[in-house]
Amino acid sequence: MVGIIANAWAARDSSGHLSPYSFHLRETGPDDMVLRVLYCGVDHTDLHQLKGELASSNTNYPLVPGHEVVGEVVQVGSEVKNFKVGDTVGVGGIVGSCGECILCNSNLEQYCNNRIMTYNHFYKDGTPTQGGFSSAMVVHQSFAVKIPDNLAPEQAAPLLCAGVTAYSPLKQFMDSGKVLRGGILGLGGVGHLGVIIAKAMGHHVTVISSSDKKREEAMEHLNADAFLLSSNEAEMKQTINSLDYILDTVPAFHPLELYLSLLKTEGKLLLVGAAPKPLQFIASDMILGKKAIMGSYIGSMKDMEELLNFWVENGLTSMIEVVKMDYVNKAFERIERNDVRYRFVLDIAGSNLELK
Amino acid sequence: MVGIIANAWAARDSSGHLSPYSFHLRETGPDDMVLRVLYCGVDHTDLHQLKGELASSNTNYPLVPGHEVVGEVVQVGSEVKNFKVGDTVGVGGIVGSCGECILCNSNLEQYCNNRIMTYNHFYKDGTPTQGGFSSAMVVHQSFAVKIPDNLAPEQAAPLLCAGVTAYSPLKQFMDSGKVLRGGILGLGGVGHLGVIIAKAMGHHVTVISSSDKKREEAMEHLNADAFLLSSNEAEMKQTINSLDYILDTVPAFHPLELYLSLLKTEGKLLLVGAAPKPLQFIASDMILGKKAIMGSYIGSMKDMEELLNFWVENGLTSMIEVVKMDYVNKAFERIERNDVRYRFVLDIAGSNLELK
Repeated sequence: MVGIIANAWAARDSSGHLSPYSFHLRETGPDDMVLRVLYCGVDHTDLHQLKGELASSNTNYPLVPGHEVVGEVVQVGSEVKNFKVGDTVGVGGIVGSCGECILCNSNLEQYCNNRIMTYNHFYKDGTPTQGGFSSAMVVHQSFAVKIPDNLAPEQAAPLLCAGVTAYSPLKQFMDSGKVLRGGILGLGGVGHLGVIIAKAMGHHVTVISSSDKKREEAMEHLNADAFLLSSNEAEMKQTINSLDYILDTVPAFHPLELYLSLLKTEGKLLLVGAAPKPLQFIASDMILGKKAIMGSYIGSMKDMEELLNFWVENGLTSMIEVVKMDYVNKAFERIERNDVRYRFVLDIAGSNLELK
Repeated sequence: MVGIIANAWAARDSSGHLSPYSFHLRETGPDDMVLRVLYCGVDHTDLHQLKGELASSNTNYPLVPGHEVVGEVVQVGSEVKNFKVGDTVGVGGIVGSCGECILCNSNLEQYCNNRIMTYNHFYKDGTPTQGGFSSAMVVHQSFAVKIPDNLAPEQAAPLLCAGVTAYSPLKQFMDSGKVLRGGILGLGGVGHLGVIIAKAMGHHVTVISSSDKKREEAMEHLNADAFLLSSNEAEMKQTINSLDYILDTVPAFHPLELYLSLLKTEGKLLLVGAAPKPLQFIASDMILGKKAIMGSYIGSMKDMEELLNFWVENGLTSMIEVVKMDYVNKAFERIERNDVRYRFVLDIAGSNLELK
């Protein structure tokens, strides 16, 4: 027995070009829900996956990407407790984990060795996972989160991966009782949400970028408190030893010693962008400054729920560009040249997904 | 007005050779004490300082090294409150700081930008600081710690720098309520005290070394729970993802990715050995494992006091080799070829320090 047919867009090969593709969703079990997908965010890592450029995983074609999925529940299994038909829910970067290890039982399921990625991966029975660039999706109730009623579904989409990637390491600095000085290194999808979240936490936020074009965006559009051009030695020197943390979203090689010098004693560099080449630092900078480099990977389901509530409570708005599916290949071209402010969100329900 | 004359041993040039040297101690102020030095530990960094090999600071000759100083109080200034003549006290790596910044007021004075190093540095008035390879020493009361009555002074000496360097980052793992699995990377002065301290905290302790000769020492003499030869791939593989922390004492380049792989999710690499060349890591190892690299520098006066009490309460004993001053050049030769188990302590009061 196989599941219902979904109309999706998939890449067939390492050109990464997406085109219509129909496939059977996996069977639904008692803990599963069927979603009608409404919106799906578009991430830079999707592009690398499509093209088979990630060293960490092979790409299996046809590949339906998308891991910032917002959908409407249209069917629930007999054991589904927290959701009902008609609910709007979100699905992020993972759709499964072992459920039994200490990580799964400590709200760290995203680090579980047996986590199942939302696409380009396999369920325990060997069925390939496929992402949210699709009319429908089947998801286990433990890997869906309720989207608050007063949050527009297209606004929710980027929070499910990019947003929680920023929120998860930043939440240690929430309610610190003082105005922390934070740096956001790199102003892309994750970085822009980092600025919004850190500002909402009451921090003094400095955007650090290698591109002076980001100055106006940071200061005018994102309401950052300061902007620092990383190539401007004078600006950088003025900022030395002044930041409590830096959220480092840069997914390419960059000289950490430069950014570590901006941190105060006990400052933390929060690493979320996975540069493929090794990063390096000078040990004495870390030792004499009691500094730390801390990795963090997406976020847990609990983080996602917290972030959605935090977002609504603070009346936040991300900057997204909503496009239809027939624009998706163009969107990836623009992502490739960093021509997006700051996240494309596909209007899946409003797109014609079928073969033309 | 100048202070009393001390008989010390000093290096005169970058040969690092030590020989008798007399000098005037600095004047004593109301907050100062005069110590008759009893014992002084000998550290590998002393050797680099003597030879002018540290990139971070020039060496000023004549240089009297020694920053693990145990002495008897023989004179106290009018404002000295916590010490009296006859007390045994210890002095570690720093003898001054601004006293006003947030670090000084948060028991992090060792990170103060205006800290004054115990030797090869200058007091605010420009007087050079000189270390504990000397018959006497003047110290501000804020930078001395009481040695508990039931602790032998020669045993206390290595705790004042090497010991507190291990204790300060390890204390976050004290009273964790479970048996943590710790790694101690490098079995020198700091490493051997790290093993003793971590064992006393109730941890399961694995010594990691590039030298198989350390296996017996670790297991038999230091009572470690396991030994890992870093070049033994099979042994290393068995230990992957198993350690809560690694105290990394290696002061030379070493491949961090190898050691980061031994850490559990949320594991911490505690960096205390300052390799002169940059260290490197793979970002995704840190991100997918929620791992952290944390620098830590010696310890605060409060850490020192805590460690001395912890040491006595747990009835601990370090492995030291007590020698007279006329052996000091030989001792440094042996340190240079790692031929010491694990710390030389100079019996200053029992040595003839004068010119022969």
